[in-house]
Amino acid sequence: MTKSLAIGIDIGGTNTTFGLVNREGEILFKGGISTPAYEHIADYIAALMEGIMPAVASAGIENIEGIGVGAPNGNYFTGEIAFAPNLPWKGIIPLAKLISEAMNLKVTLTNDAKAAAIGEMIYGKAKGMKNFIQVTLGTGLGSGFVANGQLIYGHDGFAGELGHVTAVRNGRKCGCGRFGCLETYASATGIVRSAEELLAGTNDETPLRALQGKITARDIHLAAENGDLFSLALFEYTGMILGETLADAVAITSPEAIIFFGGLANAGNLIIEPTQKHMEANLLPIYQNKIKLCQSALDGSNAAILGASALVW
Amino acid sequence: MTKSLAIGIDIGGTNTTFGLVNREGEILFKGGISTPAYEHIADYIAALMEGIMPAVASAGIENIEGIGVGAPNGNYFTGEIAFAPNLPWKGIIPLAKLISEAMNLKVTLTNDAKAAAIGEMIYGKAKGMKNFIQVTLGTGLGSGFVANGQLIYGHDGFAGELGHVTAVRNGRKCGCGRFGCLETYASATGIVRSAEELLAGTNDETPLRALQGKITARDIHLAAENGDLFSLALFEYTGMILGETLADAVAITSPEAIIFFGGLANAGNLIIEPTQKHMEANLLPIYQNKIKLCQSALDGSNAAILGASALVW
Repeated sequence: MTKSLAIGIDIGGTNTTFGLVNREGEILFKGGISTPAYEHIADYIAALMEGIMPAVASAGIENIEGIGVGAPNGNYFTGEIAFAPNLPWKGIIPLAKLISEAMNLKVTLTNDAKAAAIGEMIYGKAKGMKNFIQVTLGTGLGSGFVANGQLIYGHDGFAGELGHVTAVRNGRKCGCGRFGCLETYASATGIVRSAEELLAGTNDETPLRALQGKITARDIHLAAENGDLFSLALFEYTGMILGETLADAVAITSPEAIIFFGGLANAGNLIIEPTQKHMEANLLPIYQNKIKLCQSALDGSNAAILGASALVW
Repeated sequence: MTKSLAIGIDIGGTNTTFGLVNREGEILFKGGISTPAYEHIADYIAALMEGIMPAVASAGIENIEGIGVGAPNGNYFTGEIAFAPNLPWKGIIPLAKLISEAMNLKVTLTNDAKAAAIGEMIYGKAKGMKNFIQVTLGTGLGSGFVANGQLIYGHDGFAGELGHVTAVRNGRKCGCGRFGCLETYASATGIVRSAEELLAGTNDETPLRALQGKITARDIHLAAENGDLFSLALFEYTGMILGETLADAVAITSPEAIIFFGGLANAGNLIIEPTQKHMEANLLPIYQNKIKLCQSALDGSNAAILGASALVW
């Protein structure tokens, strides 16, 4: 008998969410715990078990194919999370092994952006696609590249760091220590940096000026929706940098579609239209007017669980 | 019985070479014809047949698994060559179909740089590797990206155009109509452009000055080998642009190795060392000091035939 259920666990810096998912992508059970509340990994695993076990018992463990985990800095090949700056556990944590031992189920781990790409392929807009790029525009910029129907993990599991492609030579200082990385421009954090820089350098009237020093990407999104020209220019600028860099990524993997996910992607066409315009302007003719750019169809609050669970199938 | 032989055909702008190759990469028969001598594709196919058929007959057609063809602008999915600027036949040519009908064997076609990548994987330095990048530094810059043990063709067969990644924003005019493409700097043609530009802009003493207006990449290679500082600086500059762009490609596919092939790659460490230095300086820490850069092990004069024949296996 084919096992019909998978457990998806998404580990974020603030919350861990988990759920029981069937092959159609329906979430039959959903729960969560605080991530930073557990300083010791053993306590965290115990709390995770306590949250999931009742649902597992009622569904029957014999019906569960396995567990998929999406985590920052998660490595598919080793099953470890290594030096994740936003998680409470330092050094290298053999997370897949720890969860597998606790639950007696097979565990597959990867980073959150790759889990989102797999979720999109199994349940979302990339269903049936064999070549696409998933771009998560969150605090940083994560990505998953799918080619020949398979996620590209690379030699060591670290492929897909589009956020750390140099978009602007000698540009903004990045958290990674380098300069001009794409994610310093094209992410929720990046567009806020652009806003603060532009506010400091101009006298333009904008509702954002009253928020100076504590602007969020959501503020810029709302102001742009209300027609604020300053905020629209910020999306245009962000889309320019993102579109130029995506044109280079297209030249390497020639995808059918590029799918945007995450907080800043919720701005929809405000970010997608300028990105597409500048990408097209930088593409070789053989790629022009062929690549679909769209927002993820995965429901935001469930997408992380779906993505993680999709690792199992 | 397993068929033990393949035919490899490499179509270049000047020469077409072909050979009969066994699974160990030994070339049992080799021949060639002029490409531009045949204005009509039917005449070209006839000449190709005439060149290959005696060898096929003596080996026995029942021992031949198929034919692999590497050609400029060759598309793996369609079997066509489309608008190849350096070939005599205009428009779209269904080359795989034409050769297959003439020889009654299965034909697989791809572009020359992808054929070189497959040749490297089957017979060369990438034997056993599942993730690597092959970079052909010839008149232009071609590339083949291998991930999960498979060449990335992309949605439409046009993946791997690393030569048209924008290396320098608003940089040199490229043959493709865009600006700053990697191949305008990092190729045999690119290093010559750098030489001519630098000669015109400086009074530096160099043996290249006597050759101004007709310098070749080979001249720069030889002068650098003889310690000419001007020529060494040209390799340093070329390696800087190439290394910076390869760092971005590494962030996408995280390869085990990058293998250089083609005319300019024959300069060996003159080009590889500066490329590696500048690539490493631009890599995320997770990739540093792990990626092998090396020159192809395929014998130059046979590599194209081997690469094409490797498409069959």
